[in-house]
Amino acid sequence: MKAEIISIGDELLIGQVINTNAVFIAKQLTAVGFQVGKIVTVEDKGESIKEAMGSVGEETKLVVLTGGLGPTKDDLTKQALLEFFKDEWTENNEALENVKRIFKDNQHALIEENFLQAKVPSRAKVLQNERGTAPGLWFENENCIYIALPGVPFEMKGLLIKKVLPELVQRFSLPSIVQKTIITSGLGESLLFERLKDLEGQLPSHIKLAYLPGPGRVRLRLMAVGEDKDELQVELNSWIAKIIERLENHYAGVEGEDSLVAVIATRLTSAKKTLAVSESFTGGKLAGLFTTIPGAATYFKGGVVPYYTEMKTEILGVSPETIQKYSVVSAEVAKEMALKTKEKFESDYAISTTGNAGPTKGDSDAEIGTAYIGLATPEETKTYEFFLGEEREEIVERAIFKVLEILYKEIYELN
Amino acid sequence: MKAEIISIGDELLIGQVINTNAVFIAKQLTAVGFQVGKIVTVEDKGESIKEAMGSVGEETKLVVLTGGLGPTKDDLTKQALLEFFKDEWTENNEALENVKRIFKDNQHALIEENFLQAKVPSRAKVLQNERGTAPGLWFENENCIYIALPGVPFEMKGLLIKKVLPELVQRFSLPSIVQKTIITSGLGESLLFERLKDLEGQLPSHIKLAYLPGPGRVRLRLMAVGEDKDELQVELNSWIAKIIERLENHYAGVEGEDSLVAVIATRLTSAKKTLAVSESFTGGKLAGLFTTIPGAATYFKGGVVPYYTEMKTEILGVSPETIQKYSVVSAEVAKEMALKTKEKFESDYAISTTGNAGPTKGDSDAEIGTAYIGLATPEETKTYEFFLGEEREEIVERAIFKVLEILYKEIYELN
Repeated sequence: MKAEIISIGDELLIGQVINTNAVFIAKQLTAVGFQVGKIVTVEDKGESIKEAMGSVGEETKLVVLTGGLGPTKDDLTKQALLEFFKDEWTENNEALENVKRIFKDNQHALIEENFLQAKVPSRAKVLQNERGTAPGLWFENENCIYIALPGVPFEMKGLLIKKVLPELVQRFSLPSIVQKTIITSGLGESLLFERLKDLEGQLPSHIKLAYLPGPGRVRLRLMAVGEDKDELQVELNSWIAKIIERLENHYAGVEGEDSLVAVIATRLTSAKKTLAVSESFTGGKLAGLFTTIPGAATYFKGGVVPYYTEMKTEILGVSPETIQKYSVVSAEVAKEMALKTKEKFESDYAISTTGNAGPTKGDSDAEIGTAYIGLATPEETKTYEFFLGEEREEIVERAIFKVLEILYKEIYELN
Repeated sequence: MKAEIISIGDELLIGQVINTNAVFIAKQLTAVGFQVGKIVTVEDKGESIKEAMGSVGEETKLVVLTGGLGPTKDDLTKQALLEFFKDEWTENNEALENVKRIFKDNQHALIEENFLQAKVPSRAKVLQNERGTAPGLWFENENCIYIALPGVPFEMKGLLIKKVLPELVQRFSLPSIVQKTIITSGLGESLLFERLKDLEGQLPSHIKLAYLPGPGRVRLRLMAVGEDKDELQVELNSWIAKIIERLENHYAGVEGEDSLVAVIATRLTSAKKTLAVSESFTGGKLAGLFTTIPGAATYFKGGVVPYYTEMKTEILGVSPETIQKYSVVSAEVAKEMALKTKEKFESDYAISTTGNAGPTKGDSDAEIGTAYIGLATPEETKTYEFFLGEEREEIVERAIFKVLEILYKEIYELN
């Protein structure tokens, strides 16, 4: 069943804000069995909103709109919906009570704009918003359901998860969708394709393979659509196994529906092993990533970001001689950082990063883009050298992926 | 002059990948004076791509497409362009040389799919891609320019910045656009609107005010379009000053074209002051953010992520008695963390976070969503208590913003 998403907001069109709402909605709709065929972002203008609604595909049965439901002048979605459906205004008592409740909590007096939040098109079913003053709106005509949600992510998520999805799932008999993503390393897109093309040719029509090239690696996504989720899972897994076999040593893990970080977290937790990090090159981003996982406190002991060179000595205890002899961006320093981190945190594994992300060479002679990763395991300490390119953001992102890959391979056998 | 962006890729429609390409392109096009009126994301299907190209607005003079130019079966953009323009294939020698060059570097033999990269529609001007094998393609008809770029961000960025924008800027006489974003705190969208609505009513038609509500704060963006950039800047600044005056103590800074982090970095650097952090609640994300800024090594000394409770003692030196007496999530622990961080890193300022992000209460009795922030300055150490909600991702994001807000206010007077 086809769905479309319409995002409303000038901030998205000038590149000020990333459209994370569309990602969230697309993921949730896909998970329950909708096929999102199009995502459109339009301006805060009545005409643009109505035009987008009028351009929805014929087969589309569901349209989710976000944004423009607020109380200010640039919030024009409600008016556009009213005009699109040739409807008239009514006041919704429950929405008004909700506005009063929220403002009571905030201890502010109600003003004219707050009352406007309770004014809704009469044809709309009103979805009460526990997290804000703007209610969601649900419209239907013979062909399609149109649901307008607020643009504030916290409010949109609450309404989508608690009110919209349960009703959609009950209403439609949606297919099951299962997917898994394989991480590869060391082969470009075309060589991977060469290696897999006969397998891809054999895939049944309800299973699709997609190549997702990214910094430092290509991911392969297999997605199957059908009726019985368990059967699909079995079928998908058999194809995944064939692909993995074909990849040989270029196989670097299965992402499944989890991220690589989540896979590492699960494995460390179930093996009762712990991890610590010291990050110069990655500046805290690895720790930030590892602590994203709920329950991180069972496997992630912590980290150090010794960004100034002398902090590597003062906080971590790396010997100043090593730094002076080999320079701060070197395999030797990465090794000592990993070792000292493992000692300080009394962890089973420790990861370190040191490198030069530019724009200047800083305290080292290393070329911009050079990075060293250290890995201390219960048995030994290894180092890895990489040259990751020249653009600051990209090379840090690549280094993070390299760390995850190294760590994943190391703990792959743990149980 | 109106522009549109068409993003191609199933991975965007199932929510597997965030559409950062569209954000980047939108930002760059806006910066040189285009007005991006629509962003459309469609499936890897010839029909969908052609339909999106056929639905471009009448006033649109530029369409930038990304994705689907690779060598694999799911890359269908080139074929769709060929059909849309009723064109025929030709082989581009330069593109072939480029493919050979890249594969020589990678020491792989060329395969059939690599040669396909050099096959292009004959009407297209070929944009040679230094960073990958898929060339960009530039088409024109009497009304509009269509530019197809690869979906790999690193490759897309290289072509857009080095080849596409310089030519567009030369070709068109584009208007100037200036914008600034004010950060507010402590007032919801409707109360802000109430406070500013008469000012908004006085704005000339070429200046637009937008409200951007987000976790914990509302931002206000003023954007002006006109001919002379310097004049616009002066005009915009006078409106900004009026708004700031009206906001009184709800004014929390100007973001300009920089992020709040960049503003803080600039101010610390110019005042020759340094910063260090210790993060439990935010798990490394603050350090990650501060090190995003090029030149961070001049003001950011580093950080500690003492995620396990006992690491707060062992790595940072927080007294176990304080933790036991007040619990690990407490103002007292936040205060001691900030102080010890300042000492250890010998920094001028230090920030600490401790809190409970859920899903379980962990080592403390604090409710999920409770967070304490400590701030050590050259003069004193302060603490702040927040209750930030219940959803892990959201509450950490809010805490990060609270820290930036606190730090910004503290260093606002520095010069």
